Amino acid sequence: MVEKESKKKWNFEGNFHGEQKTASPPITVRGILYMIMRSLNKDDDRPIIPLGHGDPSAFPCFRTSAAAEDAVVDALRSARYNSYSPTVGILPARRAIAGYLSHDLPYNLSPDDVYLTVGCSNAIEVIIEALARPGANILVPRPGFPYYDVRAACSNLEVRHYDLLPDKGWEVDLEAVEALSDENTVAMVIINPGNPCGNVHSPQHLEKIAEKARKLGILVIADEVYEQITFGSTNFVPMAAFAATVPVITLGSISKRWTVPGWRLGWLVTCDPTAALKNSGLIERITECLEVTTDPATFMQAAIPQILEKTKEEFYSNIIAILRRCADICFDRLQEIPCITCPSKPEGSMFLMVKLNLELLDDIGDDMEFCIKLAEEESVVVLPGVAVGMKNWLRVTFACDHSCLEDGLGRMKAFCQRHAKKH
Amino acid sequence: MVEKESKKKWNFEGNFHGEQKTASPPITVRGILYMIMRSLNKDDDRPIIPLGHGDPSAFPCFRTSAAAEDAVVDALRSARYNSYSPTVGILPARRAIAGYLSHDLPYNLSPDDVYLTVGCSNAIEVIIEALARPGANILVPRPGFPYYDVRAACSNLEVRHYDLLPDKGWEVDLEAVEALSDENTVAMVIINPGNPCGNVHSPQHLEKIAEKARKLGILVIADEVYEQITFGSTNFVPMAAFAATVPVITLGSISKRWTVPGWRLGWLVTCDPTAALKNSGLIERITECLEVTTDPATFMQAAIPQILEKTKEEFYSNIIAILRRCADICFDRLQEIPCITCPSKPEGSMFLMVKLNLELLDDIGDDMEFCIKLAEEESVVVLPGVAVGMKNWLRVTFACDHSCLEDGLGRMKAFCQRHAKKH
Repeated sequence: MVEKESKKKWNFEGNFHGEQKTASPPITVRGILYMIMRSLNKDDDRPIIPLGHGDPSAFPCFRTSAAAEDAVVDALRSARYNSYSPTVGILPARRAIAGYLSHDLPYNLSPDDVYLTVGCSNAIEVIIEALARPGANILVPRPGFPYYDVRAACSNLEVRHYDLLPDKGWEVDLEAVEALSDENTVAMVIINPGNPCGNVHSPQHLEKIAEKARKLGILVIADEVYEQITFGSTNFVPMAAFAATVPVITLGSISKRWTVPGWRLGWLVTCDPTAALKNSGLIERITECLEVTTDPATFMQAAIPQILEKTKEEFYSNIIAILRRCADICFDRLQEIPCITCPSKPEGSMFLMVKLNLELLDDIGDDMEFCIKLAEEESVVVLPGVAVGMKNWLRVTFACDHSCLEDGLGRMKAFCQRHAKKH
Repeated sequence: MVEKESKKKWNFEGNFHGEQKTASPPITVRGILYMIMRSLNKDDDRPIIPLGHGDPSAFPCFRTSAAAEDAVVDALRSARYNSYSPTVGILPARRAIAGYLSHDLPYNLSPDDVYLTVGCSNAIEVIIEALARPGANILVPRPGFPYYDVRAACSNLEVRHYDLLPDKGWEVDLEAVEALSDENTVAMVIINPGNPCGNVHSPQHLEKIAEKARKLGILVIADEVYEQITFGSTNFVPMAAFAATVPVITLGSISKRWTVPGWRLGWLVTCDPTAALKNSGLIERITECLEVTTDPATFMQAAIPQILEKTKEEFYSNIIAILRRCADICFDRLQEIPCITCPSKPEGSMFLMVKLNLELLDDIGDDMEFCIKLAEEESVVVLPGVAVGMKNWLRVTFACDHSCLEDGLGRMKAFCQRHAKKH
């Protein structure tokens, strides 16, 4: 005889409320965006303008290349890739990515250097878990990408934040890097082209980063998920170009350059011409970590050689032209808003960081309140800077079609005017 | 000036060898299979017979349904599913899975009960991480699926093993379950249809499990990745049929029924008609855990409604007919081998467990040595029982085409005869 439900006590009751949640709250970009989107006004008939996340794939002008779609369909229709994948990924895909990334390097990567992951976020998960040791720490940029902090919390790896310098085009504060590091520092992360700042590090600056990291005895994790997405005066140079100076682990994916973040195919590449990583045992650890996480779809892996080979130059240059125009529109329109300061024009990625001058606003206390009210009143979604480590700034994506971007920034201007302090 | 490489010392050197590795070695099925496959003799011209893993997708007779392939191609070609997915999965897929699983239940699941994952292994990762609390423990079957142990080690969740009883058709030893549990036990895992035993729990036995779990105040995690794959006298009944007695979390995927493990689409479903899970806060924890892991490809999610709706009954019944014949062949051939005892004929899944009678063998010390020598001498790959918690047993999959299975079991017989003790 089953007792009444209301009286039944379960062992697990109350187990999942409480302390652990406050110890490591998963503050992800999407978590904060969901929160802000809850403030959207359903009675507003205007379209929602998504300036919060780096995913323009829903706009027809950002549709991926026909060659990429064909490649996936061909792999699937072959019925040869329905099986489980090997832990590290299938060889043809590893070989193709090694070739693709070697173009810009003074040496050739081997297929064995390439590990396939479920998007770049899975690559972050794996490298963070592989680096985690009692007492170890890593250095990450501020502003940055909070998923590093989230995964480090999951793996009990200490994170220390170095600043990017808005007055120097968001260069790495190399003095801060040195001041923060100690003998337990194992790695520093750079994100280039920059999310959230839209900057692109020059080869000279990358060389300085390499020399500093070498001096400190730490490896560089180069998050290059926006590789090749540049449209300013500085071209993209991979950090691995300096791997003879310092060992580099490059993270990337097809999500951004091919605008297919939903396809979940990324990579982790060990750029280790001096064998420092190999000798340390880290590469073995990476394989162990991959062993216990899940793999990207096998047919997606099988599509990679064809995606890389057959996508036409025209596709890439068209996307870059669209993004260049987007960046122009975004920078120009934001300059017209008095309560917003934009330290530099973006040259890469899909974002820029702007400062809120709260003293010019009447009834808005911080960046979070700004974003919530903006969503509520104007159906425009923007990410508060606090989500990426810079309170009272905003991260704005310009990867939208042009009219949508104009519309959104126009609404943001109207919002700021409405909330401006009266003199 | 860069110092000589041989002299350069890095902070991370030696960091990744050592104690952590021995504390939680990732003993996964595929890790052990890789190890065994390293013993394969490259000079053997015969085909390798893969009786080690549950993935028959490479055999033409197990090719997935045309409807499933079409569904994925349609979703991809629509270009509507290239974006990031919501954390929990897209609504049409959640709704379709809720409908699919509700067929066999006395109540209807809601789309909100369904969370999409990167295959069933990601679902295991999420539920284990969600349950992990200092001091908590879970009960898992022995023999079982070692990924539960691996993920529990990653999440610092204590695992206790209850036995399945070979003499009772691999039923759960319910007395052991009670003896092992205490006030910190939060859940028990059942795998039905059974991996590795090929058993199918009767509804009467499932009801007893539900009552026992209720008495102990623990929830049931029902790993039903082999749902509907039965070909004996016992039909599949989902554990969630007893969710009014005990809250159930069902794990599943399209990997097995549609023979597409490489497509990486699984689910975690909360079967909680009494709201016990909701009230405990566990559902919120599951969402938090999903938030920090990666998602299945969005177009794969979008294909789900069509896969479930359009796959013809004929496809399912054909696969079942092939597997039934496979199970017959496997059971019959294994019976002919004196040093192998097979306690019962499989009625579901793709595996059976057999006992090695080592005293009948001359120069083989244990199951691992048996499998290594079998791979070396006969190019047949079988999983040693130690990998699933039963030393000196073997897990054999029969999900192969018939001639391949006959060939492999013939070679295994020859191997055993060659190594038999002479009287």
